[in-house]
Amino acid sequence: MTTKYSIGVDLGGTNLRVAVMRQEETLTESVSLRTRLQEGRDAVIADLCDAVAALRLRHNASGGCVGIGVGTPGPLEMPEGILRRPPNLPGWDGFAVRAAIERRLGQPILLESDANVAALAEARFGAGKRFDVDSLCMLTLGTGVGNGIVLHGHIWHGMSGMAGEAGHIAVVPEGIPCGCGSRGCLELYASATGLRRMALESIAAGQAQTSLARLARENPEFQAKDVAHLAEGGDAQAQAIFTEMGRCLGLTLAALVNTLNLPLYVLGGGSAAAWPLFAPAMQRELHERSYVYRATEPTGQECIEHARGKTHLVQAELGADSGILGAAFLPWAEKHGSSV
Amino acid sequence: MTTKYSIGVDLGGTNLRVAVMRQEETLTESVSLRTRLQEGRDAVIADLCDAVAALRLRHNASGGCVGIGVGTPGPLEMPEGILRRPPNLPGWDGFAVRAAIERRLGQPILLESDANVAALAEARFGAGKRFDVDSLCMLTLGTGVGNGIVLHGHIWHGMSGMAGEAGHIAVVPEGIPCGCGSRGCLELYASATGLRRMALESIAAGQAQTSLARLARENPEFQAKDVAHLAEGGDAQAQAIFTEMGRCLGLTLAALVNTLNLPLYVLGGGSAAAWPLFAPAMQRELHERSYVYRATEPTGQECIEHARGKTHLVQAELGADSGILGAAFLPWAEKHGSSV
Repeated sequence: MTTKYSIGVDLGGTNLRVAVMRQEETLTESVSLRTRLQEGRDAVIADLCDAVAALRLRHNASGGCVGIGVGTPGPLEMPEGILRRPPNLPGWDGFAVRAAIERRLGQPILLESDANVAALAEARFGAGKRFDVDSLCMLTLGTGVGNGIVLHGHIWHGMSGMAGEAGHIAVVPEGIPCGCGSRGCLELYASATGLRRMALESIAAGQAQTSLARLARENPEFQAKDVAHLAEGGDAQAQAIFTEMGRCLGLTLAALVNTLNLPLYVLGGGSAAAWPLFAPAMQRELHERSYVYRATEPTGQECIEHARGKTHLVQAELGADSGILGAAFLPWAEKHGSSV
Repeated sequence: MTTKYSIGVDLGGTNLRVAVMRQEETLTESVSLRTRLQEGRDAVIADLCDAVAALRLRHNASGGCVGIGVGTPGPLEMPEGILRRPPNLPGWDGFAVRAAIERRLGQPILLESDANVAALAEARFGAGKRFDVDSLCMLTLGTGVGNGIVLHGHIWHGMSGMAGEAGHIAVVPEGIPCGCGSRGCLELYASATGLRRMALESIAAGQAQTSLARLARENPEFQAKDVAHLAEGGDAQAQAIFTEMGRCLGLTLAALVNTLNLPLYVLGGGSAAAWPLFAPAMQRELHERSYVYRATEPTGQECIEHARGKTHLVQAELGADSGILGAAFLPWAEKHGSSV
C-alpha cells in the first residue's frame, strides 16, 4: 500500500532542516545541515534542493508526494516569493527564493515566512490543537519579533504577503528609531536584541556597581538570557527591563485583540522563555486595554474571560520544531482548501 | 416573472430605515422613521418589525425574499446578537436584539453592527468597487470611532463578533482614560467627541482671545464641525487639533497595515469630511510607520506605492446610505458563501 507524504524545509540563518511528513502529522525522516551562508546563496539553495531531491527519490516508491513546503526567514513578498531585506539572511535582499528553488527542483513549492510557518504549526499541532481552535496570532520573540496570523486554518497573507508584521506596531510612538524606518516598534522592546539594548541603556543611566553593570563589564557580549538570569535571581534592575517588555507586549496584544478578536494568541521564540518575568506586566496591560475582555479566571492568569468564549494567551508549545512541522504541513493545509 | 429581493434595516440612534433591495444592488422602496428611543426598546423593535412585515407583504407576490439584514449600533456580541453597552442606544445594554426581532418577525435575520454593515457596503458598492478589491478596513469617525473589516467579501467577526474595535487601539499609551476602560484610545482623538474635547483642552491651555476661545464662549455647545470651520479659515489653533487627529489616525492605520496588509483603508462618518485638515499629518505618519510602504505616487498623496500592489487610503463614498445598502446586501453576501 502506498501512503502519501509531504516534504518540509526549514531554512534558517544557522540551520537547514528537511523532513518527510506522512499522514498530515508524522515526521518520519529528516536531514539537518548547517546553512552555508558564507558560501553564497547558490550553495545554500543547492544544499536545500539536493536534500529535498534525495528524500523525494527515497520515498517516491512508497507513495505520492502531495507537495513541498518551504519556510524561510522573512519578510517575503508574495506570491512571487522575493526576500525583502531579511535580517537573518544578510545579502539576500531582493533574492527570488521561490524561483531559485522551483527552477532547481523542477516543481512548484509552497513558500512561507518562518513566522507564518511557526504560526501554522502551533495552530495545527501545538496550542491551537490543545484549545481546539483554528485561528490564532503568534508572535515569535527572537532576534527580531516575527508575527504569523492563521484564520480558520489558513495563513493570512494580506495583499502581498506582508501581513503579520505586528512586530512593527509602534508601542512608544515617539520612541527610538527602528531599522524599519519607524520609531518605537514592539521589536525594540520584546526581541533579544531589544532586551540587550534596554539593559545597556539601564546601565548607562544607573550606578556603576549594580549586578547588571558588572555583568556587562565581565561579559561585554552578554545576551538577553543573561539579563533574564539576573532577573530570576531577584535583581530589580534586570526585572524592570522585563516589566517594560511585558508592558509593550500587552499594548500590542490589546491592539490585536481589539482588531481581530481571535481566540488564541501565542508567544514563541527564545525570549518567550522569560514568560514568568514579563507575563505579569503583559497581562495587566492586556486586561486594561482589551475592549471586551476584563475579568480574570479564578484558576489562573493566562485566560481572559468574556461573556462568550475566551481569549487565551500562552507560550508556544512546539519550540524549535515549529518550523519544520509547519513547513511540512503546508501541502496538507493547501489540500484542505484555498487560503482565506 | 418573479425576482428575488432582500430587506435591509438600518437602526440608528436617531433614524430607522427599512428598504427593499433587488438584484443584489438596487434599492427599490424604502421607509424612513424616527427611532422612538424615549418610548423604550419594545416600541422601537415593534416599529422596525412592522415596517419589515409591511414591505415583505407588499413584495412577496413579486418574488421570494432571500433574507432580512439588520444593522444596529454596536458593540454586538455574536452569534447571539446581544448589545454590550452601546453608546448610541442608551439603556439597551445586555438587550438580545436578535432574539427580539426574530421572535416578532417569526423568521431568522442577519444581524451586524453598523460599522460592519458600512464596511460591507463600501466594499461592495463604494471604494472597494472603484478599486476592484474585496478586502478593506473601514473606520467610521462619528460620535465614537467604529471599525469594520471585510476579508474577501465577508465581514470578519472574530471569535465573538468583537473584531473591528480599532477605535480602541491605544495611540497615546499613557493618555487620558477612555470609556472602554483603557487610556489614550484612537476614539479620544478622532471622533467628533474627541475633537470637541481637544478644542476645550486647547482653549484651557491657551489665551482667552483666540478665535477658538471666542467660539466656545459664544456657543458653548459648539461641535467638531465648528472647529473644522475655523481651521478651514486658517486658524492655527484649530488646525493643530486636526493635525493631532491625523497623527493618531496615521498611527492606528500603520498598525492595521502592518498587521493585515489589506489593499484598502476607508474613512467614513461625519468627521471624515475634515479630510483636507487631517490627511497630511495622517499620511505622513502612515508613510513613516508602515513596514513595507514607503514611496508616494507622483500623482497624489493618498496612494502608498509598493513593489507589488498598492495600499489605498480614501474617504468613504456612500455617506449616510452605507448603513441601509450594507444591511440590505447582507443576505446576498451570505448567499455567496459562508463568511471567512
